[in-house]
Amino acid sequence: MRYELYYWPSIQGRGEFVRLALEDAAAVYVDVARRSGRGYGIAALERFLENRSVAKPPFAPPYLKAGDLIVGQTAAILLYLGPRLDLVPKTESTRLWVHQLQLTVSDFLVEIHDTHHPIASSLYYRQQKEEALRRTRYFRRERVPKFLGYFESVLRQSGGPYLLGRRFSYVDLSMFQLVEGLRYAFPRTMARSERAYPRLIALHGKVASRPNIARYLASERRIPFNEYGIFRHYPELDR
Amino acid sequence: MRYELYYWPSIQGRGEFVRLALEDAAAVYVDVARRSGRGYGIAALERFLENRSVAKPPFAPPYLKAGDLIVGQTAAILLYLGPRLDLVPKTESTRLWVHQLQLTVSDFLVEIHDTHHPIASSLYYRQQKEEALRRTRYFRRERVPKFLGYFESVLRQSGGPYLLGRRFSYVDLSMFQLVEGLRYAFPRTMARSERAYPRLIALHGKVASRPNIARYLASERRIPFNEYGIFRHYPELDR
Repeated sequence: MRYELYYWPSIQGRGEFVRLALEDAAAVYVDVARRSGRGYGIAALERFLENRSVAKPPFAPPYLKAGDLIVGQTAAILLYLGPRLDLVPKTESTRLWVHQLQLTVSDFLVEIHDTHHPIASSLYYRQQKEEALRRTRYFRRERVPKFLGYFESVLRQSGGPYLLGRRFSYVDLSMFQLVEGLRYAFPRTMARSERAYPRLIALHGKVASRPNIARYLASERRIPFNEYGIFRHYPELDR
Repeated sequence: MRYELYYWPSIQGRGEFVRLALEDAAAVYVDVARRSGRGYGIAALERFLENRSVAKPPFAPPYLKAGDLIVGQTAAILLYLGPRLDLVPKTESTRLWVHQLQLTVSDFLVEIHDTHHPIASSLYYRQQKEEALRRTRYFRRERVPKFLGYFESVLRQSGGPYLLGRRFSYVDLSMFQLVEGLRYAFPRTMARSERAYPRLIALHGKVASRPNIARYLASERRIPFNEYGIFRHYPELDR
Protein backbone atom coordinates (compact mmCIF):
# COMPACT_ATOMS: atom_id res chain seq x y z
CA MET A 1 0.00 0.00 0.00
CA ARG A 2 1.22 3.49 -0.86
CA TYR A 3 -0.08 5.86 1.82
CA GLU A 4 -0.76 9.52 1.30
CA LEU A 5 -0.35 11.73 4.36
CA TYR A 6 -2.05 15.11 4.28
CA TYR A 7 -0.65 17.61 6.73
CA TRP A 8 0.71 21.13 6.92
CA PRO A 9 4.11 21.18 5.20
CA SER A 10 5.98 23.55 7.51
CA ILE A 11 5.40 22.09 10.98
CA GLN A 12 5.75 18.83 12.84
CA GLY A 13 2.43 19.29 14.63
CA ARG A 14 0.07 16.37 14.99
CA GLY A 15 1.16 15.00 11.62
CA GLU A 16 4.53 14.12 13.11
CA PHE A 17 3.01 11.30 15.16
CA VAL A 18 1.91 9.69 11.91
CA ARG A 19 5.19 10.46 10.11
CA LEU A 20 7.13 8.72 12.89
CA ALA A 21 5.03 5.56 12.51
CA LEU A 22 5.39 5.53 8.72
CA GLU A 23 9.12 6.17 8.96
CA ASP A 24 9.79 3.57 11.63
CA ALA A 25 7.99 0.94 9.56
CA ALA A 26 9.75 2.08 6.36
CA ALA A 27 6.31 2.40 4.77
CA VAL A 28 5.88 3.75 1.26
CA TYR A 29 4.21 7.12 1.68
CA VAL A 30 3.90 10.57 0.19
CA ASP A 31 3.77 13.67 2.37
CA VAL A 32 1.37 15.30 -0.06
CA ALA A 33 1.50 18.97 0.95
CA ARG A 34 5.29 18.98 1.01
CA ARG A 35 5.56 18.09 -2.66
CA SER A 36 4.98 20.49 -5.50
CA GLY A 37 3.16 19.88 -8.74
CA ARG A 38 -0.29 18.91 -9.80
CA GLY A 39 -2.20 17.08 -7.04
CA TYR A 40 0.31 18.11 -4.39
CA GLY A 41 0.96 21.10 -2.15
CA ILE A 42 -1.33 22.89 0.28
CA ALA A 43 -4.03 23.15 -2.40
CA ALA A 44 -4.34 19.35 -2.40
CA LEU A 45 -4.53 19.34 1.39
CA GLU A 46 -7.36 21.86 1.46
CA ARG A 47 -9.24 20.23 -1.38
CA PHE A 48 -10.46 17.38 0.84
CA LEU A 49 -11.40 19.69 3.67
CA GLU A 50 -13.55 22.00 1.62
CA ASN A 51 -14.88 19.64 -0.99
CA ARG A 52 -18.59 19.11 -0.48
CA SER A 53 -18.54 15.95 -2.55
CA VAL A 54 -16.23 14.08 -0.16
CA ALA A 55 -18.47 11.53 1.55
CA LYS A 56 -16.53 11.29 4.80
CA PRO A 57 -14.73 14.62 5.09
CA PRO A 58 -12.00 14.91 7.72
CA PHE A 59 -12.50 17.72 10.24
CA ALA A 60 -8.87 18.86 10.11
CA PRO A 61 -5.38 17.68 9.11
CA PRO A 62 -3.71 15.30 9.53
CA TYR A 63 -5.59 12.78 7.49
CA LEU A 64 -4.42 9.71 5.64
CA LYS A 65 -5.48 8.33 2.32
CA ALA A 66 -5.08 4.58 1.87
CA GLY A 67 -6.61 3.52 -1.41
CA ASP A 68 -10.22 4.70 -1.25
CA LEU A 69 -10.19 5.14 2.51
CA ILE A 70 -9.70 8.53 4.12
CA VAL A 71 -8.99 8.56 7.86
CA GLY A 72 -8.72 11.71 9.96
CA GLN A 73 -7.84 12.26 13.62
CA THR A 74 -4.26 11.41 14.57
CA ALA A 75 -5.14 8.67 17.06
CA ALA A 76 -7.59 7.07 14.60
CA ILE A 77 -4.93 7.11 11.86
CA LEU A 78 -2.56 5.27 14.17
CA LEU A 79 -5.31 2.85 15.20
CA TYR A 80 -5.71 2.06 11.51
CA LEU A 81 -2.01 1.95 10.62
CA GLY A 82 -0.79 0.12 13.73
CA PRO A 83 -1.61 -3.46 12.74
CA ARG A 84 -0.86 -2.79 9.05
CA LEU A 85 2.64 -1.55 9.87
CA ASP A 86 3.15 -4.24 12.52
CA LEU A 87 3.46 -1.52 15.14
CA VAL A 88 0.97 -3.06 17.56
CA PRO A 89 0.14 -6.63 18.65
CA LYS A 90 -2.86 -8.36 17.12
CA THR A 91 -5.11 -8.93 20.15
CA GLU A 92 -8.03 -6.54 20.41
CA SER A 93 -7.55 -5.74 24.09
CA THR A 94 -3.92 -4.75 23.54
CA ARG A 95 -4.78 -2.61 20.53
CA LEU A 96 -7.44 -0.89 22.58
CA TRP A 97 -4.96 -0.26 25.39
CA VAL A 98 -2.37 1.23 23.05
CA HIS A 99 -5.08 3.38 21.48
CA GLN A 100 -6.20 4.51 24.93
CA LEU A 101 -2.64 5.61 25.70
CA GLN A 102 -2.50 7.42 22.35
CA LEU A 103 -5.72 9.27 23.21
CA THR A 104 -4.08 10.39 26.44
CA VAL A 105 -1.20 11.71 24.33
CA SER A 106 -3.83 13.61 22.30
CA ASP A 107 -5.26 15.13 25.48
CA PHE A 108 -1.81 16.24 26.57
CA LEU A 109 -1.11 17.79 23.15
CA VAL A 110 -4.18 20.02 23.41
CA GLU A 111 -2.90 21.30 26.74
CA ILE A 112 0.60 21.83 25.36
CA HIS A 113 -0.83 23.79 22.43
CA ASP A 114 -3.02 25.86 24.72
CA THR A 115 -0.06 27.04 26.79
CA HIS A 116 0.69 29.50 23.98
CA HIS A 117 -2.92 29.77 22.76
CA PRO A 118 -5.17 29.85 25.82
CA ILE A 119 -7.74 32.21 24.28
CA ALA A 120 -8.07 31.47 20.56
CA SER A 121 -6.19 29.70 17.79
CA SER A 122 -7.14 32.56 15.50
CA LEU A 123 -5.09 35.06 17.53
CA TYR A 124 -1.33 35.39 17.59
CA TYR A 125 0.59 34.37 20.67
CA ARG A 126 1.48 37.99 21.40
CA GLN A 127 -2.22 38.81 21.52
CA GLN A 128 -2.78 36.34 24.36
CA LYS A 129 0.59 36.43 26.06
CA GLU A 130 -0.68 37.50 29.48
CA GLU A 131 -3.13 34.62 29.60
CA ALA A 132 -0.44 32.29 28.25
CA LEU A 133 1.90 33.22 31.09
CA ARG A 134 -0.79 32.44 33.62
CA ARG A 135 -1.96 29.21 32.03
CA THR A 136 1.57 27.91 31.59
CA ARG A 137 2.41 28.34 35.28
CA TYR A 138 -0.31 25.81 36.10
CA PHE A 139 0.66 23.65 33.15
CA ARG A 140 4.26 23.33 34.36
CA ARG A 141 3.31 22.80 37.99
CA GLU A 142 0.29 20.50 37.62
CA ARG A 143 -0.18 19.12 34.14
CA VAL A 144 3.37 18.10 33.15
CA PRO A 145 3.80 15.98 36.33
CA LYS A 146 0.28 14.57 35.89
CA PHE A 147 0.81 13.32 32.33
CA LEU A 148 4.50 12.38 32.49
CA GLY A 149 3.95 10.77 35.89
CA TYR A 150 1.15 8.70 34.39
CA PHE A 151 3.26 7.44 31.48
CA GLU A 152 6.15 6.74 33.85
CA SER A 153 3.82 4.65 36.04
CA VAL A 154 2.61 2.69 33.00
CA LEU A 155 6.25 1.93 32.14
CA ARG A 156 6.87 0.82 35.71
CA GLN A 157 3.84 -1.50 35.58
CA SER A 158 4.81 -2.93 32.20
CA GLY A 159 8.36 -3.59 33.32
CA GLY A 160 9.65 -1.59 30.32
CA PRO A 161 11.51 -0.71 28.28
CA TYR A 162 8.31 -0.07 26.26
CA LEU A 163 4.81 0.87 27.33
CA LEU A 164 3.75 -2.71 26.55
CA GLY A 165 6.80 -4.17 28.27
CA ARG A 166 9.11 -5.95 25.86
CA ARG A 167 6.92 -5.35 22.82
CA PHE A 168 7.48 -2.08 20.94
CA SER A 169 4.41 -0.25 19.62
CA TYR A 170 3.55 3.01 17.89
CA VAL A 171 2.71 4.77 21.15
CA ASP A 172 6.39 4.48 22.11
CA LEU A 173 7.14 6.66 19.10
CA SER A 174 4.65 9.19 20.45
CA MET A 175 6.43 9.13 23.83
CA PHE A 176 9.67 10.00 22.04
CA GLN A 177 7.99 12.91 20.31
CA LEU A 178 6.44 14.19 23.55
CA VAL A 179 9.77 14.23 25.38
CA GLU A 180 11.56 15.70 22.36
CA GLY A 181 8.97 18.44 22.00
CA LEU A 182 8.82 19.28 25.68
CA ARG A 183 12.61 19.54 25.77
CA TYR A 184 12.46 21.99 22.87
CA ALA A 185 9.62 24.08 24.29
CA PHE A 186 10.43 23.93 28.00
CA PRO A 187 14.16 23.16 28.38
CA ARG A 188 14.45 24.61 31.89
CA THR A 189 11.33 22.86 33.15
CA MET A 190 12.48 19.55 31.68
CA ALA A 191 16.05 19.89 32.99
CA ARG A 192 14.61 20.28 36.47
CA SER A 193 12.06 17.50 36.28
CA GLU A 194 13.39 14.74 34.04
CA ARG A 195 14.97 12.75 36.86
CA ALA A 196 11.43 11.99 38.08
CA TYR A 197 10.76 10.05 34.86
CA PRO A 198 13.78 7.78 34.34
CA ARG A 199 11.88 5.11 32.40
CA LEU A 200 10.34 7.64 30.06
CA ILE A 201 13.69 9.28 29.37
CA ALA A 202 15.27 5.88 28.73
CA LEU A 203 12.45 5.08 26.31
CA HIS A 204 13.06 8.37 24.49
CA GLY A 205 16.71 7.41 24.00
CA LYS A 206 15.82 3.92 22.85
CA VAL A 207 13.41 5.22 20.22
CA ALA A 208 15.88 7.87 19.00
CA SER A 209 18.43 5.16 18.27
CA ARG A 210 16.14 2.92 16.25
CA PRO A 211 17.81 2.80 12.82
CA ASN A 212 14.84 4.07 10.79
CA ILE A 213 14.10 6.80 13.30
CA ALA A 214 17.74 7.90 13.58
CA ARG A 215 17.94 8.07 9.78
CA TYR A 216 14.69 10.02 9.60
CA LEU A 217 15.70 12.51 12.30
CA ALA A 218 18.95 13.21 10.44
CA SER A 219 17.15 13.68 7.12
CA GLU A 220 15.53 16.72 5.57
CA ARG A 221 12.18 15.01 5.95
CA ARG A 222 12.26 15.87 9.67
CA ILE A 223 11.04 19.46 9.90
CA PRO A 224 12.84 21.34 12.68
CA PHE A 225 10.77 22.57 15.63
CA ASN A 226 9.64 26.15 15.15
CA GLU A 227 7.24 28.72 16.58
CA TYR A 228 4.31 27.69 14.37
CA GLY A 229 3.67 24.19 15.67
CA ILE A 230 2.40 22.69 18.92
CA PHE A 231 5.75 22.76 20.72
CA ARG A 232 7.02 26.34 20.77
CA HIS A 233 9.91 27.76 22.68
CA TYR A 234 9.00 31.06 24.31
CA PRO A 235 11.56 31.54 27.11
CA GLU A 236 9.11 33.58 29.21
CA LEU A 237 6.82 30.51 29.42
CA ASP A 238 9.65 28.32 30.71
CA ARG A 239 10.63 29.66 34.11
CA MET B 1 -22.24 -9.03 29.81
CA ARG B 2 -22.80 -6.86 32.89
CA TYR B 3 -20.87 -3.63 32.40
CA GLU B 4 -19.51 -1.46 35.18
CA LEU B 5 -19.23 2.24 34.42
CA TYR B 6 -16.91 4.28 36.61
CA TYR B 7 -17.58 7.99 36.56
CA TRP B 8 -18.21 10.93 38.89
CA PRO B 9 -21.65 10.49 40.43
CA SER B 10 -22.84 14.11 40.44
CA ILE B 11 -22.28 15.25 36.85
CA GLN B 12 -23.15 14.21 33.32
CA GLY B 13 -19.66 15.07 32.05
CA ARG B 14 -17.91 12.73 29.66
CA GLY B 15 -19.49 9.73 31.32
CA GLU B 16 -22.85 10.77 29.89
CA PHE B 17 -21.78 9.80 26.37
CA VAL B 18 -21.26 6.26 27.63
CA ARG B 19 -24.45 6.26 29.71
CA LEU B 20 -26.49 7.24 26.66
CA ALA B 21 -25.10 4.31 24.67
CA LEU B 22 -25.74 1.83 27.49
CA GLU B 23 -29.25 3.20 28.02
CA ASP B 24 -30.20 3.23 24.35
CA ALA B 25 -29.13 -0.39 24.00
CA ALA B 26 -30.85 -1.36 27.26
CA ALA B 27 -27.56 -2.87 28.39
CA VAL B 28 -27.15 -4.31 31.86
CA TYR B 29 -24.80 -1.95 33.67
CA VAL B 30 -23.94 -0.53 37.06
CA ASP B 31 -23.02 3.12 37.50
CA VAL B 32 -20.55 2.20 40.21
CA ALA B 33 -19.89 5.52 41.93
CA ARG B 34 -23.60 6.33 42.18
CA ARG B 35 -24.32 3.30 44.33
CA SER B 36 -23.50 3.00 47.97
CA GLY B 37 -22.11 0.05 49.84
CA ARG B 38 -19.00 -2.06 49.73
CA GLY B 39 -17.26 -1.89 46.32
CA TYR B 40 -19.31 1.11 45.24
CA GLY B 41 -19.17 4.88 45.61
CA ILE B 42 -16.39 7.33 44.82
CA ALA B 43 -13.93 5.21 46.79
CA ALA B 44 -14.38 2.42 44.22
CA LEU B 45 -13.88 4.90 41.40
CA GLU B 46 -10.61 6.18 42.80
CA ARG B 47 -9.32 2.74 43.66
CA PHE B 48 -8.51 1.95 40.04
CA LEU B 49 -6.92 5.32 39.40
CA GLU B 50 -4.51 5.19 42.31
CA ASN B 51 -3.87 1.49 42.57
CA ARG B 52 -0.32 0.73 41.53
CA SER B 53 -1.13 -2.90 40.96
CA VAL B 54 -3.59 -2.21 38.13
CA ALA B 55 -1.79 -3.37 34.99
CA LYS B 56 -3.47 -0.98 32.56
CA PRO B 57 -4.55 1.96 34.70
CA PRO B 58 -6.96 4.47 33.15
CA PHE B 59 -5.73 8.07 33.13
CA ALA B 60 -9.06 9.51 34.27
CA PRO B 61 -12.77 8.69 34.49
CA PRO B 62 -14.85 7.57 32.70
CA TYR B 63 -13.67 4.03 32.41
CA LEU B 64 -15.57 0.84 31.81
CA LYS B 65 -15.06 -2.59 33.28
CA ALA B 66 -16.23 -5.49 31.13
CA GLY B 67 -15.19 -8.75 32.74
CA ASP B 68 -11.41 -8.50 33.13
CA LEU B 69 -11.07 -5.68 30.63
CA ILE B 70 -10.76 -2.06 31.75
CA VAL B 71 -11.15 0.58 29.05
CA GLY B 72 -10.63 4.29 29.60
CA GLN B 73 -11.10 7.32 27.33
CA THR B 74 -14.70 8.04 26.34
CA ALA B 75 -14.19 7.55 22.60
CA ALA B 76 -12.31 4.29 23.16
CA ILE B 77 -15.09 3.01 25.42
CA LEU B 78 -17.61 3.71 22.66
CA LEU B 79 -15.31 2.12 20.09
CA TYR B 80 -15.36 -1.00 22.25
CA LEU B 81 -19.06 -0.93 23.12
CA GLY B 82 -20.38 0.07 19.69
CA PRO B 83 -20.37 -3.33 17.97
CA ARG B 84 -21.26 -5.17 21.21
CA LEU B 85 -24.37 -3.05 21.70
CA ASP B 86 -25.19 -3.10 17.99
CA LEU B 87 -24.76 0.67 17.88
CA VAL B 88 -22.45 0.68 14.86
CA PRO B 89 -22.24 -1.33 11.62
CA LYS B 90 -19.77 -4.16 11.37
CA THR B 91 -17.47 -3.01 8.56
CA GLU B 92 -14.10 -1.72 9.74
CA SER B 93 -14.15 1.40 7.58
CA THR B 94 -17.54 2.49 8.94
CA ARG B 95 -16.51 1.85 12.52
CA LEU B 96 -13.42 3.91 11.94
CA TRP B 97 -15.49 6.73 10.47
CA VAL B 98 -17.91 6.76 13.41
CA HIS B 99 -14.94 6.72 15.80
CA GLN B 100 -13.38 9.61 13.90
CA LEU B 101 -16.58 11.62 14.35
CA GLN B 102 -16.61 10.71 18.04
CA LEU B 103 -13.03 11.97 18.38
CA THR B 104 -14.16 15.26 16.87
CA VAL B 105 -16.87 15.38 19.55
CA SER B 106 -14.08 14.87 22.11
CA ASP B 107 -12.14 17.79 20.65
CA PHE B 108 -15.20 20.01 20.85
CA LEU B 109 -15.84 18.97 24.46
CA VAL B 110 -12.38 20.15 25.52
CA GLU B 111 -13.12 23.54 23.99
CA ILE B 112 -16.54 23.69 25.65
CA HIS B 113 -14.97 22.88 29.00
CA ASP B 114 -12.24 25.45 28.53
CA THR B 115 -14.73 28.27 28.00
CA HIS B 116 -15.19 28.31 31.77
CA HIS B 117 -11.72 26.97 32.58
CA PRO B 118 -9.26 28.63 30.18
CA ILE B 119 -6.41 28.81 32.71
CA ALA B 120 -6.50 25.73 34.95
CA SER B 121 -8.91 22.98 35.97
CA SER B 122 -7.60 23.33 39.50
CA LEU B 123 -8.95 26.89 39.82
CA TYR B 124 -12.55 27.90 40.28
CA TYR B 125 -14.39 29.60 37.46
CA ARG B 126 -14.49 32.88 39.40
CA GLN B 127 -10.70 32.81 39.59
CA GLN B 128 -10.43 32.80 35.78
CA LYS B 129 -13.57 34.68 34.84
CA GLU B 130 -11.85 37.46 32.92
CA GLU B 131 -10.03 34.98 30.71
CA ALA B 132 -13.22 32.94 30.37
CA LEU B 133 -15.11 35.96 29.06
CA ARG B 134 -12.43 36.58 26.45
CA ARG B 135 -12.05 32.95 25.40
CA THR B 136 -15.79 32.41 25.14
CA ARG B 137 -16.24 35.34 22.75
CA TYR B 138 -14.03 33.53 20.25
CA PHE B 139 -15.64 30.21 21.08
CA ARG B 140 -19.12 31.50 20.24
CA ARG B 141 -18.01 33.35 17.12
CA GLU B 142 -15.56 30.86 15.63
CA ARG B 143 -15.65 27.44 17.25
CA VAL B 144 -19.39 26.77 17.60
CA PRO B 145 -19.97 27.42 13.86
CA LYS B 146 -16.86 25.43 12.96
CA PHE B 147 -17.91 22.28 14.83
CA LEU B 148 -21.68 22.43 14.37
CA GLY B 149 -21.21 23.41 10.72
CA TYR B 150 -19.00 20.39 10.24
CA PHE B 151 -21.52 17.97 11.73
CA GLU B 152 -24.30 19.61 9.72
CA SER B 153 -22.29 19.10 6.53
CA VAL B 154 -21.72 15.43 7.38
CA LEU B 155 -25.48 15.04 7.80
CA ARG B 156 -26.03 16.75 4.43
CA GLN B 157 -23.54 14.38 2.77
CA SER B 158 -25.04 11.29 4.39
CA GLY B 159 -28.55 12.28 3.39
CA GLY B 160 -29.65 11.99 7.04
CA PRO B 161 -31.44 11.61 9.30
CA TYR B 162 -28.36 10.08 10.98
CA LEU B 163 -24.68 10.77 10.54
CA LEU B 164 -24.39 7.48 8.66
CA GLY B 165 -27.54 8.18 6.64
CA ARG B 166 -30.33 5.75 7.43
CA ARG B 167 -28.30 3.72 9.90
CA PHE B 168 -28.35 4.91 13.51
CA SER B 169 -25.08 4.75 15.48
CA TYR B 170 -23.73 5.78 18.87
CA VAL B 171 -22.31 9.05 17.57
CA ASP B 172 -25.89 10.20 16.93
CA LEU B 173 -26.42 9.91 20.68
CA SER B 174 -23.39 12.13 21.18
CA MET B 175 -24.88 14.70 18.77
CA PHE B 176 -28.00 14.77 20.92
CA GLN B 177 -25.92 15.38 24.03
CA LEU B 178 -23.90 18.15 22.35
CA VAL B 179 -27.01 20.05 21.27
CA GLU B 180 -28.69 19.46 24.63
CA GLY B 181 -25.63 20.67 26.53
CA LEU B 182 -25.06 23.71 24.34
CA ARG B 183 -28.70 24.72 24.75
CA TYR B 184 -28.28 24.51 28.51
CA ALA B 185 -24.99 26.39 28.64
CA PHE B 186 -25.52 28.92 25.85
CA PRO B 187 -29.29 29.36 25.33
CA ARG B 188 -29.02 32.80 23.72
CA THR B 189 -26.23 31.75 21.38
CA MET B 190 -28.12 28.63 20.36
CA ALA B 191 -31.43 30.46 19.89
CA ARG B 192 -29.67 32.78 17.46
CA SER B 193 -27.76 30.13 15.55
CA GLU B 194 -29.79 26.93 15.48
CA ARG B 195 -31.51 27.68 12.18
CA ALA B 196 -28.11 27.25 10.50
CA TYR B 197 -28.09 23.58 11.53
CA PRO B 198 -31.53 22.19 10.64
CA ARG B 199 -30.34 18.61 10.15
CA LEU B 200 -28.51 18.56 13.45
CA ILE B 201 -31.51 19.95 15.31
CA ALA B 202 -33.77 17.39 13.64
CA LEU B 203 -31.36 14.64 14.69
CA HIS B 204 -31.45 15.91 18.28
CA GLY B 205 -35.24 15.61 18.28
CA LYS B 206 -35.16 12.17 16.74
CA VAL B 207 -32.76 10.87 19.38
CA ALA B 208 -34.74 12.45 22.23
CA SER B 209 -37.81 10.51 21.16
CA ARG B 210 -36.17 7.10 20.99
CA PRO B 211 -38.09 5.06 23.59
CA ASN B 212 -35.12 4.03 25.70
CA ILE B 213 -33.65 7.51 25.61
CA ALA B 214 -36.97 9.22 26.42
CA ARG B 215 -37.41 6.85 29.36
CA TYR B 216 -33.85 7.50 30.54
CA LEU B 217 -34.17 11.28 30.28
CA ALA B 218 -37.34 11.17 32.39
CA SER B 219 -35.74 8.95 35.02
CA GLU B 220 -33.67 9.77 38.07
CA ARG B 221 -30.71 8.13 36.38
CA ARG B 222 -30.33 11.25 34.22
CA ILE B 223 -28.40 13.74 36.34
CA PRO B 224 -29.57 17.31 35.67
CA PHE B 225 -27.09 19.75 34.14
CA ASN B 226 -25.30 21.78 36.80
CA GLU B 227 -22.33 24.10 37.26
CA TYR B 228 -19.85 21.32 37.98
CA GLY B 229 -19.79 19.55 34.64
CA ILE B 230 -18.61 20.37 31.13
CA PHE B 231 -21.73 22.29 30.11
CA ARG B 232 -22.26 25.15 32.57
CA HIS B 233 -24.65 28.02 32.31
CA TYR B 234 -22.99 31.30 33.21
CA PRO B 235 -25.17 34.03 31.66
CA GLU B 236 -22.22 36.39 31.26
CA LEU B 237 -20.57 33.88 28.89
CA ASP B 238 -23.67 33.73 26.70
CA ARG B 239 -24.13 37.13 25.12
